[in-house]
Amino acid sequence: MEHCIINIGRQYGSGGRQIGEKIAERLHFAYYDKELINLASKESGLGKEFFEAADEKKTYSLTGGWLGLRNNFISSNFLENYLSNETLFKIQSDIIRELADKQHCVFVGRCADYILRNYPHVLNVFITADLADRKTRILERMKDLAEDKAEDMLEKTDKRRAGYYNYYTGKTWGAAASYHLCVNSSVLGIDGTVDYICDLFEKSGMVEGMR
Amino acid sequence: MEHCIINIGRQYGSGGRQIGEKIAERLHFAYYDKELINLASKESGLGKEFFEAADEKKTYSLTGGWLGLRNNFISSNFLENYLSNETLFKIQSDIIRELADKQHCVFVGRCADYILRNYPHVLNVFITADLADRKTRILERMKDLAEDKAEDMLEKTDKRRAGYYNYYTGKTWGAAASYHLCVNSSVLGIDGTVDYICDLFEKSGMVEGMR
Repeated sequence: MEHCIINIGRQYGSGGRQIGEKIAERLHFAYYDKELINLASKESGLGKEFFEAADEKKTYSLTGGWLGLRNNFISSNFLENYLSNETLFKIQSDIIRELADKQHCVFVGRCADYILRNYPHVLNVFITADLADRKTRILERMKDLAEDKAEDMLEKTDKRRAGYYNYYTGKTWGAAASYHLCVNSSVLGIDGTVDYICDLFEKSGMVEGMR
Repeated sequence: MEHCIINIGRQYGSGGRQIGEKIAERLHFAYYDKELINLASKESGLGKEFFEAADEKKTYSLTGGWLGLRNNFISSNFLENYLSNETLFKIQSDIIRELADKQHCVFVGRCADYILRNYPHVLNVFITADLADRKTRILERMKDLAEDKAEDMLEKTDKRRAGYYNYYTGKTWGAAASYHLCVNSSVLGIDGTVDYICDLFEKSGMVEGMR
């Protein structure tokens, strides 16, 4: 059986990650974002030497602490300090394919739409939201962020995401032509958007691949 | 009562125009594309002097014929030869607002999403499709087009549309962030895509404005 894959790209603060989690829960798919992809890589032994190096360095942080890493969880920012982007991308790509071969999955970010472009049952989605809702969302998440810095933060994060995506995929991040569906989560709210995306998935016939 | 407006942008050959017509039919909305907006402008007396000039020239085409203009229908290409882009844009903007004030409407193209950006009940949609489907569609429409020129034609037309849209709106044509919904019509087909868009319209609460 070929597995069904839903890939989600998103504007920062659009609720895309939460939407991805809820879609996975609804459809009983496995859910992976950047952190969980890194954890799966580590567990699978992919790029073992890099994770070990990262683990070793972990105890020697400038602050002398554990950098808030718990439960064997490697933070992506931490990894990014020790691996070249190319190496990290390669490890993440291998694990994304390995995970997609094993089960139905929702992937958030990490160019998974590009990495899995030759897989037969793939739905690529991009989430946007109204600026006001995105600001509210990140201000709730980051209590220390000054209100007048929120817009700047949104812009910088999206610029970084776009740069990463465009570099590795040769496609355009956030362009309608790069996805099957792009939807503004402010229209229907988080749960309504989850319903709406699941509806496309069901109608698309991809679901036949699950039977 | 405020009227409900659905604006549709589209990749060339994506079926966007047909989708727009079917949505209008389904919801009993008035339907306007470029040609119909020009006709409405003419009938309303907007830019009267330009349409008269165009009418006069009509009989003096190089081929000595009527340039295929029937039923008082002014071709857009023809108009574009006699009006500056700025003038044409202004006339079209005025008539789009006038039409939106009178009734529920579907507009295809003409930056209607930007022109009506301050209207309260507006849903902005962009239609894409797989390259193969777009090629098939324009080859069916233009019997004289050589198959190996189809891709070039798609690219050039979209480049022109993007240039027009980006110039007048300051937004990015075909970027997810510019619309509430972007959908690839190859996933569900024309009728399935019409259903899917009407579903968003109904769930969005905009429909309350119609009651």
